[in-house]
Amino acid sequence: MIYFVTKNRHKYEEAKKIIKEIKILSLSYPEIQADNIESVIKFAIEYLKDKIEEKFFIEDSGLFIEELKGFPGAFSSYVFKTIGNQGILKLMENVKNRNAKFVSIVGYFNGSLHIFKGECQGKISYKIRGNKGFGYDPIFIPNGCKKTFGEMEIEEKNKYSHRGKSIRKFKEYLNTK
Amino acid sequence: MIYFVTKNRHKYEEAKKIIKEIKILSLSYPEIQADNIESVIKFAIEYLKDKIEEKFFIEDSGLFIEELKGFPGAFSSYVFKTIGNQGILKLMENVKNRNAKFVSIVGYFNGSLHIFKGECQGKISYKIRGNKGFGYDPIFIPNGCKKTFGEMEIEEKNKYSHRGKSIRKFKEYLNTK
Repeated sequence: MIYFVTKNRHKYEEAKKIIKEIKILSLSYPEIQADNIESVIKFAIEYLKDKIEEKFFIEDSGLFIEELKGFPGAFSSYVFKTIGNQGILKLMENVKNRNAKFVSIVGYFNGSLHIFKGECQGKISYKIRGNKGFGYDPIFIPNGCKKTFGEMEIEEKNKYSHRGKSIRKFKEYLNTK
Repeated sequence: MIYFVTKNRHKYEEAKKIIKEIKILSLSYPEIQADNIESVIKFAIEYLKDKIEEKFFIEDSGLFIEELKGFPGAFSSYVFKTIGNQGILKLMENVKNRNAKFVSIVGYFNGSLHIFKGECQGKISYKIRGNKGFGYDPIFIPNGCKKTFGEMEIEEKNKYSHRGKSIRKFKEYLNTK
């Protein structure tokens, strides 16, 4: 059994579709303000590692919009709670370059730290589309798709998504143990 | 002598106008992602207190825009580096309610932690005005003024500003010792 330390039920459900032997542990931990997610993960693992006796992992992700210099980046959840998808679309009004990427980093601790990264390149949509997923899913279209993540079931989203990729890398690592 | 731990020279100069006996100590510390500045300060003091032998203080501030549910808040510096004042003005296009406040919190550590808070109510301007100060100064008009902070010299800004207030409270405390 491995604990997924998260307060985000959606993330847990996405990961559970890929790795069956995980359990959610709803615990808070400090997330530092950093412009890259890896620093956020490393700091959090340092904080958590003495508090949890079992093997555990955390996952953090962010949306990096090219034309907005990487905004909202590692601050995605606070930005979502305040200006939301409407705010992002307003910032992207009249912007032709819609390129964006989602980045997901898994930090797994089993006595030492292991990092697994997944990226998903895509475009910011012009409208909010779909009500599945969470966060920025309804405004992100992964490359090679016509749907936003907000229009996909978990299985389909996992095929393309940053989190699907990082969690599969993590699974491969577990399979070699 | 008291150290002001900051990487922001502007903040140091503003504080120095009010409290002469301070010195800058340019050192990084983790800032957590929190929706209130007090949590950011407390966490940072915990981190710094074993690393600095002298008395020291830190200051963190944020701009909270009413219509944007408190955005950019405690994340002000990252938001500034990415979308900047142009981004804020874009989010505020066609928004009538321009109310905003700046909040500054000083955390002073002399064996125990002391917190001093300053607030400045004001409005978001419709245009970027002035090139003094830093950050959001050119788009913030304190109540009772016509100028933005970006159009004021340090002394005038200090009269109205959140940081002027928190630093003066801190000075009063020092004077009673």
